[in-house]
Amino acid sequence: MPQLISIAVCVSDDVTLSDFIPPVDILSSMNSGDHPVLGVGVPESAYRVTIDYLAPTMAPVVALQGRPAPTFNPTLTYADAMASGKQFDVLWVPAGPVDIFATGVSTIPKDEIAFIAQQAPKAKYVMSVCTGAVQLALAGVLTGKRATTSKAFYHAVGAVTPKDITWVPEARWVIDGNVWTSSGVAAGADMALAFVEHLAGKDVARYIRNVTEHPEVTDKDDPFAKIHGLI
Amino acid sequence: MPQLISIAVCVSDDVTLSDFIPPVDILSSMNSGDHPVLGVGVPESAYRVTIDYLAPTMAPVVALQGRPAPTFNPTLTYADAMASGKQFDVLWVPAGPVDIFATGVSTIPKDEIAFIAQQAPKAKYVMSVCTGAVQLALAGVLTGKRATTSKAFYHAVGAVTPKDITWVPEARWVIDGNVWTSSGVAAGADMALAFVEHLAGKDVARYIRNVTEHPEVTDKDDPFAKIHGLI
Repeated sequence: MPQLISIAVCVSDDVTLSDFIPPVDILSSMNSGDHPVLGVGVPESAYRVTIDYLAPTMAPVVALQGRPAPTFNPTLTYADAMASGKQFDVLWVPAGPVDIFATGVSTIPKDEIAFIAQQAPKAKYVMSVCTGAVQLALAGVLTGKRATTSKAFYHAVGAVTPKDITWVPEARWVIDGNVWTSSGVAAGADMALAFVEHLAGKDVARYIRNVTEHPEVTDKDDPFAKIHGLI
Repeated sequence: MPQLISIAVCVSDDVTLSDFIPPVDILSSMNSGDHPVLGVGVPESAYRVTIDYLAPTMAPVVALQGRPAPTFNPTLTYADAMASGKQFDVLWVPAGPVDIFATGVSTIPKDEIAFIAQQAPKAKYVMSVCTGAVQLALAGVLTGKRATTSKAFYHAVGAVTPKDITWVPEARWVIDGNVWTSSGVAAGADMALAFVEHLAGKDVARYIRNVTEHPEVTDKDDPFAKIHGLI
């Protein structure tokens, strides 16, 4: 029997959809062996995933202001998840509200930060994409750790987060213990593929990469550090 | 005043979310100049986009079977759009139901094919990602044209579509007249960036590429043709 991995995607209004949609499609491709059409020729994975989309309320989530993206539907509120006592295996944290970079004041929902702080100590993996690293930082997850984030917002992220974090300017993603943080937006899919390889092995990761047509990159392949003047 | 471009994203249950979410985030980044935080330093675009998500009904859309993706909410039904007489500027068609590759029988909603056939003759651009090319083919849009599609499903797509289409095995995306077709999943974001450059110019496209951290590729960069034995 494959092992079930429970993933909590932590969202709110103003989320960047591209920080988690390709990653969840990649991670859930570990379930493809069960699909009547897509399952043909799929290498067996020792894992299957279940994914919840957590938000402050069950109302449809509205993506980053000004982006005419579709609204989507959460499966669980942060408050209900915290009250239930459920422990998730993986937290996946995309970019949320960006007001903090202009005002210095966080409009990230307090429930989201509280949920991350409650879950992180016993989660097997905690992962962020782009400025989702701000939520991890504010929840105390990055204390004393190496991490990366959006290269366009690199200095902005450093300015609003605790000083006990070692930000890495040139990396597609950074792994420190069980905390994985990626660069901006598209880097999340690359980190998701690396995570599949870490969990389920090279054959499964290669299969998913080749079906989703993501060119192979490593954690060292980061042209955007130089483009944004960070190195 | 920027020119408004209306985009119809054509979906149904069993859609692949990654075929249109990064592309709509990229296309709608042409609106970023209007954003109070993200607008700082954005090159002026001569275009803004409006995007509708069309589906057979207004019920939440359930993505490809077995993928625990979030459900999302359409903004318009195909029937209402056709009855309204509205003409969209751009059709964006992601992969839909894949049953056709196993059974030879299409379960793509008839309304979706009818909508594409109704809109395509006067649309400024018609674009597909991955096996979304099947919907274009069944709507007659690809007759006599060069096009590409998923490299994993390349032969499967050829087997269920009319023989008067010239499928191109090695290309990240193909442009024939006003019809743009991309390879699988991740290629859709690359085509979206090329489309922004085509519409709004190099500066706007480069800005969006650098914020979303998509490495630069051209339509010739297609390692997956060889990986899938097509060349």
